Amino acid sequence: MSGLDEGRNKAGVAAAWSQLRGLEARSLKALFAGDAGRAAAMTRRIDWPVEPGSEAQAGMTIDFAKTHLGEAELAAFEELAEAAGFTAARKALFGGGIVNPTEGRAATHGALRGSGTPAQVEEAEALLARMGMLVEAIHEGALGEVRHCIAIGIGGSALGPALAIDALTRDLALVDVHVVSNIDGLALEQAFAACDPATTLIAVASKTFTTIETMTNAASALKWLAENGVADPGGRVVALTAAPEKAVEWGVDETRVLPFPESVGGRYSLFSSIGFPIALAVGMDEFAAMLAGAKAVDDHFRAAEGRANAPLLAAFADQYYTRLRGCQTRAVFAYDERLALLPDYLQQLEMESNGKSVTVDGEPADGPTAAVTWGGVGTDAQHAVFQLLHQGTHLIPVDFIASIAPGDDLDPAHHRTLLMNCLAQGAALMAGKPSDDPARAYPGDRPSTTYLVDDCDAAALGALIAFHEQRTFANAVLMGINPFDQFGVELGKAIAKQIDSGEGEFDPSTTALMKAAGLA
Amino acid sequence: MSGLDEGRNKAGVAAAWSQLRGLEARSLKALFAGDAGRAAAMTRRIDWPVEPGSEAQAGMTIDFAKTHLGEAELAAFEELAEAAGFTAARKALFGGGIVNPTEGRAATHGALRGSGTPAQVEEAEALLARMGMLVEAIHEGALGEVRHCIAIGIGGSALGPALAIDALTRDLALVDVHVVSNIDGLALEQAFAACDPATTLIAVASKTFTTIETMTNAASALKWLAENGVADPGGRVVALTAAPEKAVEWGVDETRVLPFPESVGGRYSLFSSIGFPIALAVGMDEFAAMLAGAKAVDDHFRAAEGRANAPLLAAFADQYYTRLRGCQTRAVFAYDERLALLPDYLQQLEMESNGKSVTVDGEPADGPTAAVTWGGVGTDAQHAVFQLLHQGTHLIPVDFIASIAPGDDLDPAHHRTLLMNCLAQGAALMAGKPSDDPARAYPGDRPSTTYLVDDCDAAALGALIAFHEQRTFANAVLMGINPFDQFGVELGKAIAKQIDSGEGEFDPSTTALMKAAGLA
Repeated sequence: MSGLDEGRNKAGVAAAWSQLRGLEARSLKALFAGDAGRAAAMTRRIDWPVEPGSEAQAGMTIDFAKTHLGEAELAAFEELAEAAGFTAARKALFGGGIVNPTEGRAATHGALRGSGTPAQVEEAEALLARMGMLVEAIHEGALGEVRHCIAIGIGGSALGPALAIDALTRDLALVDVHVVSNIDGLALEQAFAACDPATTLIAVASKTFTTIETMTNAASALKWLAENGVADPGGRVVALTAAPEKAVEWGVDETRVLPFPESVGGRYSLFSSIGFPIALAVGMDEFAAMLAGAKAVDDHFRAAEGRANAPLLAAFADQYYTRLRGCQTRAVFAYDERLALLPDYLQQLEMESNGKSVTVDGEPADGPTAAVTWGGVGTDAQHAVFQLLHQGTHLIPVDFIASIAPGDDLDPAHHRTLLMNCLAQGAALMAGKPSDDPARAYPGDRPSTTYLVDDCDAAALGALIAFHEQRTFANAVLMGINPFDQFGVELGKAIAKQIDSGEGEFDPSTTALMKAAGLA
Repeated sequence: MSGLDEGRNKAGVAAAWSQLRGLEARSLKALFAGDAGRAAAMTRRIDWPVEPGSEAQAGMTIDFAKTHLGEAELAAFEELAEAAGFTAARKALFGGGIVNPTEGRAATHGALRGSGTPAQVEEAEALLARMGMLVEAIHEGALGEVRHCIAIGIGGSALGPALAIDALTRDLALVDVHVVSNIDGLALEQAFAACDPATTLIAVASKTFTTIETMTNAASALKWLAENGVADPGGRVVALTAAPEKAVEWGVDETRVLPFPESVGGRYSLFSSIGFPIALAVGMDEFAAMLAGAKAVDDHFRAAEGRANAPLLAAFADQYYTRLRGCQTRAVFAYDERLALLPDYLQQLEMESNGKSVTVDGEPADGPTAAVTWGGVGTDAQHAVFQLLHQGTHLIPVDFIASIAPGDDLDPAHHRTLLMNCLAQGAALMAGKPSDDPARAYPGDRPSTTYLVDDCDAAALGALIAFHEQRTFANAVLMGINPFDQFGVELGKAIAKQIDSGEGEFDPSTTALMKAAGLA
């Protein structure tokens, strides 16, 4: 028993699933035909202040009407949420409960944006203030001229900063940041080629400060600074970590170590000091706006009940498609260049969180867990993979994400065409089109959800990220699994060490590959 | 009946599938335990000259031993290939047969690298020579100083050039090329910011020269040149198209129109004049090396029979996992930064080719068709999505691709760690690891195939691309579907036009979204 499942009633969960399995699948057309108010009833809106403290609101509209959730499904999923103890789990999440029982921890990423216990929020604010002081000092020249930053980290220490910097610096970056994650030296060399060593800061992000890729890249980056005439390379390093003592041991001065709490998971750490490269590139005001957008979603998620709760409603659809329709994937297409990295970000968030086979109490999960999240950018993807969405044999629920306001200054035809295509794809997937020629027929009845943000700014980005964090949490609660551990990544690391040392037994295929690759 | 299925024996196909369905699934461990020679027997090697005409060979090794194909499966799949008329279809492909019956066309991408009928190869060589003359003239200054190129195209006119340029210009690009595909004006603005208009060439790539994204972007690019003091923007345009008359009509001088044959499909057009931006960036010698690598795979594919044929063997595995094990996805991870865009490229190649529901003769396909191809770059992906691969509930066959020679000049620890991790993941997926703690247990028996190229150079890239083209073709033949049309992308375009004109009937959800987005 833990904060995640203390309210879980197994018999009730089984009963809700049994009810859901008994429902007859209805087509999207039938759902619309039977309910003139469906479009409005299935649309949610989340707002936030245009600027901190301002009365004017911006926000996002989410249209779930083109999913197969009808009244019967919604009612049954609401029963499932109740039986799964959703309300108690949500309370535990924001109340500092042990929602990561295998590691005996709370999950306090919400507190980073003000959604947590007073003590957690206070700690987060203090750490954030410290980060802000360092960022502003750097902007003001305290470390000399800083024009570039090589931000070294991997996984949760890279995908968030890469996404936010790509999304928010299309017009201007205060510092030119290059996120480097791969151990492949080509990644670092590409950053070197774009940076002037004399004005480059190195940010090293690792929760444990032991990640092999990150520590290897950090050492090579320092070597590059030294070989290019920087007198005190160590003085150009900022460390972002939940193990500050390790960073100091490694040689980073503690004034440049920005800690974050152990209870913030890597893939949830964007809003902690892991976000330092973001703040360096966009400034603390924009960083604060991102937090405010996330907080608005938290507030909605904490207050809204049942189907009115947008992230929970998204989770109902996720569970419907994976468990009742056998979908092994869900696709997300950002119709905006600024969100080009969002599918990758969500891939980690959802697959690493819920790609598990056992429940919180160690039993096998009672059905499939996380689907494969994949996707891309519209309109590019229309010319690459939409063929399969429209005419392939696999059912794939799709999320479309677009911004009503354009990000470009070109002819408005660009943005108008972008938006028209986004909406047309959802319409086409649902409508289908018969044809006497089977090769030209579209079956239709294929689901999608459309997210429209008023503008793709820092607040909207924060909101989109928090939305998916809470959607992921809701899915975990409905399935009774722990979204906050990731033991599945350990075995590969252990075997890599065995290959390195040559000690250990390998299968004949791996042995042959080691020889071919010159590793044995 | 067409070149694709003229040798197809439906009863034989059904019998082979029936046999396959009757086989008992054996674990990978059991397959290795029963066959000491398995690693060697399931490994294929394809070689090519290190340089054109040289005796020294380089190549790639492909290890299929960690798939669930045992002797019984291989024998049954060989029967399936025979019943499906694989030999006749392959002969038709390279012999100019109508293998794209819905459009009444041959598929002559093979001829671009010398694998086709003498007439096709001669035509391809003439077009290539013409492209080479223009490329060399530009390098020699015939169009004035050309330091940048904005290559505008989408889908098949973008993904190939983007992949090849990213892979082959890590050290040096003769011309700095920016591939722009998205209608979102931000994509083009990003290229503008990186280019000097006075020294920028615009390459416009569109098979039909009517693609809305491409023509809109081309017009905006010309406007940008004009607004930035280029006297004759039209004189800076090169057109790459199968509709040369349309390009001339649009205003491109015919000396700068590089045609390619109508019978080359968009997603197979990398080696045609669509590859002009690649040749501009890397030079014609490197382009020729890429063709030579592809040709080596064609030669192997045309000569090898049954399981000895590596692309056909890969297709056996694909069919095994999609049709006998219910896998809706396959994953590909490139353990090399240079191949970062390969998963996207393969996604289009495979999903647009085989994401169909009907066979060549218009019947419903007799099972699931193309899986969703997804993936990423190692080691990054290990820290993002491998959790689900190791401990999730979905079975996902994985391809690992790595280069034995490093691409970087940093400490050799970088490349060694990269390779060790690549091999360790395949070993870990197969081995698994029991644990008393269910959250820390790995079930194992998860399949992978490993591709090791000796070096990730132009020839290897050409070989990898041709390998997957032939694998895709082999899958299509086994399933009896046409991989060369793509009618599934038409309906969305038609509905986008309706939204633009405001004429047409939309579902209530789409109508509401159009209002919210300011489109109605």
